[in-house]
Amino acid sequence: MTKKYVYSFHEGNAGMRSLLGGKGANLAEMVKIGLPVPMGFTVTTEACLNYYDEDEKISEDMLSQIFQALDNLEREMGKKLGNNEDPLLVSVRSGAVISMPGMMDTILNLGLNDESVKGLAAKTENERFAYDSYRRFIQMFGNVVMEVEHDVFESIIDSVKQKKKITQDTEMDAEDWQEVINLYEDKIKEVTGREFPQDPKEQLLMSIEAVFKSWNNQRAKVYRRINKIPDDLGTAVNVQIMVFGNKGDDSGTGVAFTRNPSTGENKVYGEFLMNAQGEDVVAGIRTPQSIEQLKDVMPDIYKQFIDICALLEKHYRDMQDIEFTIENGKLFILQTRSGKRTAQAAVKIAVELVNEGLINKEEAILRVPAGQLETLLHRRIDPNAKVEAIAKGLPASPGAASGHVVFDPDEAETIGNEGQKVVLVRTETTPDDIHGIVIAQGVLTSRGGMTSHAAVVARGMGKPCVSGCEAIKIDYEKGEFQVGEIVVKKGDIISIDGSTGEVIVGEVPMIDPELSDEFNQVLKWADEVRTLKVRANADTPHDAQVALEFGAEGIGLCRTEHMFMAPDRLPIVQQMIMSETKEEREKALSKLLPIQQEDFEGIFKVMEGLPVTVRLLDPPLHEFLPNAEDLIVEISELKAKGCSKELEAKQEMLKKVRALSEMNPMLGLRGCRLGLLYPEIYIMQVKAILKAACNLTKRGIKVITEIEIPLVGHELELKTLREIVEETADKVFAEEGTKVHYFIGTMIELPRACLTAEEIANSADFFSFGTNDLTQTTFGFSRDDAEGKILPHYVEQRILSDSPFIVLDRKGVGSLMKMAVEKGRDVKSDLLIGICGEHGGEPSSVEFCHMIGLDFVSCSPFRVPIARLAAAQAAIKEKNAK
Amino acid sequence: MTKKYVYSFHEGNAGMRSLLGGKGANLAEMVKIGLPVPMGFTVTTEACLNYYDEDEKISEDMLSQIFQALDNLEREMGKKLGNNEDPLLVSVRSGAVISMPGMMDTILNLGLNDESVKGLAAKTENERFAYDSYRRFIQMFGNVVMEVEHDVFESIIDSVKQKKKITQDTEMDAEDWQEVINLYEDKIKEVTGREFPQDPKEQLLMSIEAVFKSWNNQRAKVYRRINKIPDDLGTAVNVQIMVFGNKGDDSGTGVAFTRNPSTGENKVYGEFLMNAQGEDVVAGIRTPQSIEQLKDVMPDIYKQFIDICALLEKHYRDMQDIEFTIENGKLFILQTRSGKRTAQAAVKIAVELVNEGLINKEEAILRVPAGQLETLLHRRIDPNAKVEAIAKGLPASPGAASGHVVFDPDEAETIGNEGQKVVLVRTETTPDDIHGIVIAQGVLTSRGGMTSHAAVVARGMGKPCVSGCEAIKIDYEKGEFQVGEIVVKKGDIISIDGSTGEVIVGEVPMIDPELSDEFNQVLKWADEVRTLKVRANADTPHDAQVALEFGAEGIGLCRTEHMFMAPDRLPIVQQMIMSETKEEREKALSKLLPIQQEDFEGIFKVMEGLPVTVRLLDPPLHEFLPNAEDLIVEISELKAKGCSKELEAKQEMLKKVRALSEMNPMLGLRGCRLGLLYPEIYIMQVKAILKAACNLTKRGIKVITEIEIPLVGHELELKTLREIVEETADKVFAEEGTKVHYFIGTMIELPRACLTAEEIANSADFFSFGTNDLTQTTFGFSRDDAEGKILPHYVEQRILSDSPFIVLDRKGVGSLMKMAVEKGRDVKSDLLIGICGEHGGEPSSVEFCHMIGLDFVSCSPFRVPIARLAAAQAAIKEKNAK
Repeated sequence: MTKKYVYSFHEGNAGMRSLLGGKGANLAEMVKIGLPVPMGFTVTTEACLNYYDEDEKISEDMLSQIFQALDNLEREMGKKLGNNEDPLLVSVRSGAVISMPGMMDTILNLGLNDESVKGLAAKTENERFAYDSYRRFIQMFGNVVMEVEHDVFESIIDSVKQKKKITQDTEMDAEDWQEVINLYEDKIKEVTGREFPQDPKEQLLMSIEAVFKSWNNQRAKVYRRINKIPDDLGTAVNVQIMVFGNKGDDSGTGVAFTRNPSTGENKVYGEFLMNAQGEDVVAGIRTPQSIEQLKDVMPDIYKQFIDICALLEKHYRDMQDIEFTIENGKLFILQTRSGKRTAQAAVKIAVELVNEGLINKEEAILRVPAGQLETLLHRRIDPNAKVEAIAKGLPASPGAASGHVVFDPDEAETIGNEGQKVVLVRTETTPDDIHGIVIAQGVLTSRGGMTSHAAVVARGMGKPCVSGCEAIKIDYEKGEFQVGEIVVKKGDIISIDGSTGEVIVGEVPMIDPELSDEFNQVLKWADEVRTLKVRANADTPHDAQVALEFGAEGIGLCRTEHMFMAPDRLPIVQQMIMSETKEEREKALSKLLPIQQEDFEGIFKVMEGLPVTVRLLDPPLHEFLPNAEDLIVEISELKAKGCSKELEAKQEMLKKVRALSEMNPMLGLRGCRLGLLYPEIYIMQVKAILKAACNLTKRGIKVITEIEIPLVGHELELKTLREIVEETADKVFAEEGTKVHYFIGTMIELPRACLTAEEIANSADFFSFGTNDLTQTTFGFSRDDAEGKILPHYVEQRILSDSPFIVLDRKGVGSLMKMAVEKGRDVKSDLLIGICGEHGGEPSSVEFCHMIGLDFVSCSPFRVPIARLAAAQAAIKEKNAK
Repeated sequence: MTKKYVYSFHEGNAGMRSLLGGKGANLAEMVKIGLPVPMGFTVTTEACLNYYDEDEKISEDMLSQIFQALDNLEREMGKKLGNNEDPLLVSVRSGAVISMPGMMDTILNLGLNDESVKGLAAKTENERFAYDSYRRFIQMFGNVVMEVEHDVFESIIDSVKQKKKITQDTEMDAEDWQEVINLYEDKIKEVTGREFPQDPKEQLLMSIEAVFKSWNNQRAKVYRRINKIPDDLGTAVNVQIMVFGNKGDDSGTGVAFTRNPSTGENKVYGEFLMNAQGEDVVAGIRTPQSIEQLKDVMPDIYKQFIDICALLEKHYRDMQDIEFTIENGKLFILQTRSGKRTAQAAVKIAVELVNEGLINKEEAILRVPAGQLETLLHRRIDPNAKVEAIAKGLPASPGAASGHVVFDPDEAETIGNEGQKVVLVRTETTPDDIHGIVIAQGVLTSRGGMTSHAAVVARGMGKPCVSGCEAIKIDYEKGEFQVGEIVVKKGDIISIDGSTGEVIVGEVPMIDPELSDEFNQVLKWADEVRTLKVRANADTPHDAQVALEFGAEGIGLCRTEHMFMAPDRLPIVQQMIMSETKEEREKALSKLLPIQQEDFEGIFKVMEGLPVTVRLLDPPLHEFLPNAEDLIVEISELKAKGCSKELEAKQEMLKKVRALSEMNPMLGLRGCRLGLLYPEIYIMQVKAILKAACNLTKRGIKVITEIEIPLVGHELELKTLREIVEETADKVFAEEGTKVHYFIGTMIELPRACLTAEEIANSADFFSFGTNDLTQTTFGFSRDDAEGKILPHYVEQRILSDSPFIVLDRKGVGSLMKMAVEKGRDVKSDLLIGICGEHGGEPSSVEFCHMIGLDFVSCSPFRVPIARLAAAQAAIKEKNAK
């Protein structure tokens, strides 16, 4: 029995992808549901494999099937391929099972030859079009099938243009194209030793063979190797009749979306041009009409089109992006696919499709691109506004802001309090600048990475920040900054976009965050299916409140260092650091205790009944002192003034700064190492936390306290500190005359913690991955240094597809996490495990967290909705994969 | 049938450890081989378990066995326990199977009571001794058995002393002790409500019970938990007669080694005191006599002792450390154990024991403590010299040196060239100081860790260095440094010990390295059994030559950055770094090319026929530029002088230094990241390496070249650079008209490289672990910061047993290494894998490398012998474990 190598579009369907290739199956599917698709047939992938089996020959059997299909097609269309009066023209396209850009290009207008081109000219009453079409066909065929270099054709066109002293293709007339055609045909003969084939059937067979061969060309092989596509799939070949929108006033072409891709509104949205080809729409020479105007031009066609839109949405269960052509009053659908859309539209369409009964809630959840939601959660630059950035820094804290440039934080405060909007511009910020950041609309720094002081503080406050914008050169003395030739002075208005890192001169139109009803609906559905809890990182009662409003189910990371940095506490903290003895240190700490206690009471109260993870002090102490260079300047000024007492204090401080300075602070005296060397600091913090908890408990407020020890790499670090925490707790409970339950856990943020998680779990009630630090140590990348200088090169050179600080590196960092989860739960099967790095709000990372069985993710308050959605998507994907 | 619960020392042997406990089995073994051991019996561990089974009661059966054993002992000794005239006294000791310091202390002099003490006094003719012995017994028994606090007894002694107005125990006479005894007995009655038991048998039974009970006291339980000792082993109890060396002039006591523990000379070495107890020898009030003098005092006893020494060495097959007592002309051996010895003695004794046929070569290898060999490989301070260190820094490069203090490297060069010995003292060193280091005997710095410039350079040169000695405050202007009150001026002589970190004022006697014949013999044996190859880290032909002489089988790490730092190259390197364009950079690099080529030719020539791993540039570029603070000073000076051209250059440089400065340079732009961002640097180096190889090959010299890419964390980093290296190689071979074989591999020094080793192995011909960096990233410890400030606290607090930078952390770093070996060899079963960090010369780390199947270790030349020995020990241990 002979095999069926050729399928008419009438015979296939979407399920026959592996036989018909992606494109062939899709075309057949469209025919199947009754769309007016330009008809044609598909030569199967099996035919391609057979071609190779037969030493690159088309078998007799296959040949007769192809001609039979052509015969059927000609009969159906009432035209003959390459007929001299009204020629049937076809396209030939490759169609692999998995789309492969490395393969053959399309051949259009096949069937034209020196005679049939005249028929086309007559039928379209457009000689220029006919000859242009013919020369395009020769060019494609000559290049793709006969392997003549592309330049050869280009230089022929150039020579004709030169002769005619014209520069644009559009200036070429029918005669010119005829001349080009003659030169093309001669050149092909000269280069290949073969005539350009005039027989349409020969053209067809040669094209089919060329597609088969392209399966094994170098580009395709490399593409398959890189993308791990098997070599033995073969490609199908699609032969489809050409339709022309430029055959007169009853012809036309257009593109349309079944719904508005920008707003999601349920109304057809698109445009068309009469008596034109698709490329005319793209070229923009004539202004297209809105799709609604088609109602007036061709009411029947319009009605048919609207019906097709409804049909397509119903069939594909999604908003469609449709290309169509009208040839002599007949509508053809050339292509339909799911339409690209904005985040806002995605949300609206998903919810409405559920309401229309076309998709279910889980499908709706999967339809919303979680990563794009961020744009809806912050004030942003109106996407319709034309803005030109003068510089680009790091997108350190999302959202957009405009304001008057101010360089000095004190001045920012003054002007800000007068009601002016300001953007604080600094080389970098320090804790001394906090009051300036608080009042500013946004912050722009020329130095520092995504974890710089400015970035962290701004993110915490939900304020836009662009950091490390090295292109701007700040001159504090002159009160201006420069970018190339542009000078921006104090008081000038600039805008910054913390989501893109762009800096713009002047004010730009902004859009406020849109938390539409549909958005809330999707999130509600997401909450129903997700298993991963979502918490927020928040350091203040205000942040905690925002987090709650965004749906956070607890606080996964409350950093205590930001409390230390507040202007009213910093002097006490500095006094503590400057202490020579433990006693002095304890004295300073005792002043901090009631303040810290108040901090915690505030947060616990907001989060009543929900868990709050408080991390004990993490950063190196020198972060709380001024930097050495600033001190040197101050000291020389004081020397000049002769203020001996203040001078001495500053000199002492400089000495301490020097003593505390480290080669690699990221890997230095910080985290639990501080707690082990200066236990009195952690003891104060634990007291403050538990006194706060006791106080509220007495008042009937439920508090769930999780005390977190950072940067543990060895079980004994945690064990030792756990004992100290427990001793302290017992003392507090004795003093307070009451007890509260609390948990002690650890950040898992060092490779060694993952590798020895089974030991560390013995002393831990919970684990929380700190994937920022874990990524730094696993890759050996300092985020501050790599993000600006190294990672962009890596992404550009395709060594990495994304910065691992943005998208969690599953192979390296992820495998350590998986190991830690397994080892930890081996010891304690119900160990609570979460993640509190910034990955906790990035969809792909959230998916991974779900996959390895974490209990919660924690992210900045504004990303909580993203995490909720991503967690739901992960759960659904997992279910669907089973 | 009843169980045997009590064994006389005559009945046991060393093999009965689990029944008799460690101590009981050893005592029985000594009796078995005919030694005159104070006789006694052991109550078994089974008896202890039975005691617990019977609700903490000694069964009738056990009781009768104990009394029977006592009866036998009394008959053998011809004395009765607690007899009033010549009392038999015994000691009672616990004896667990695994030694457990958490258990009961010894009880001595059991059998004394208010009557028998008089007999002891009469027999020893020493009332004071008898009453002192009795009060000690009461004190031990009262505390351990009757659980009276220790202080209670101390305060009674104090009260008697106060009354007598004396301060020393030695001033107490017999009457005083009698008074103490009365007060003791009263107090015990008062505290416990029970009389101190006068019946010796009751004393004995109570003591045995106390030992049984001590098995389950808190300390013992904790100790067992920490050390993972099972709870169901039980403890044995040893009852042994007391012998006294102070019973007159025919009594005495002493300690002796069967060979000299300092030199290894085969001659008995020790001392004794007549009419004295062991504690008198320790107290040092009377000067003991040399053991040889015993020949004159008691010739028969001396002969017997010498015979016993021979017997013991033959039986235990090792040099012994023996405690003995002579009681009334009768020799008793109290204890024998393998004697501690110096590295030098260990080597000599091991070789001689092989020659004497007592042990085989493999045993000899195991007997030499590889870790201590380092002392033999460097000049060192005479251990017999009394030296007092004024300060202690980090032991940055081993060996000792003396010389005149010089602060300025230029001055060091001048004075050094005049023939004076100098020690260069700097806050820290930079590449500009190299000429000063070259001429100096040693280097002392007040800042910087084990990987500081001074440390690395000094180690490379095999020169002593003490780094990071923060106690010394250098004042360059005054030309002096201070430690507390001590001022050391330029020209003063100091000594430094780079093995301990000590700094000493003045010259101290030194010992030259001793590479004895025996040492070479042991190394020869080691080479026969080891499977791990040993290479050296060497950057110059001279180092390579030294390495060869120490037995290196190749170079495992040739760092190219030190070549960059030489004074004649540094300006070119700086020119390269200062370049604005790739072209400028290439121009500077082309000047470096011939110089680098010469470097490699020199090394390849020395290492003819042996593999040489050359690591491409690793450190961040700013290491080749002056530091910012120095530049600022220079600039302000130049401004004052008005040298505008030089000023501009320095200002440019400062700008570059600032641009290159990093928050965490260890995790910044270095290693292969440099090669990917500035491929021209690596291309120049590869050219230099392969041109050198081609040149030598043409001259008939065999070169085995391994090109190593540092700091790879992602497969594509290595893949990309491998392609660049291969392209460059092809160009070089075309130019040179010849080809050489070469290998391309990578350092494995990041956690991610280990986690994805199966991917990285695809592009690697070899792996070489860089465990310094791997330890830094796995633990999140910056070595420079942690070694001085954090790790000492951790070791002190017992969080870590050793610095992981010295002894490889098997659980964390080691498990990553194991993973990398397995994953790498999964892909390439014959992948060459080595280690080139400093762990490569540390015995425990070498053992681990052997265990996980590495092919080679590489260490600094001076540690090659240590590695050879350690590798052999690891191979033997593995064989023995099978």
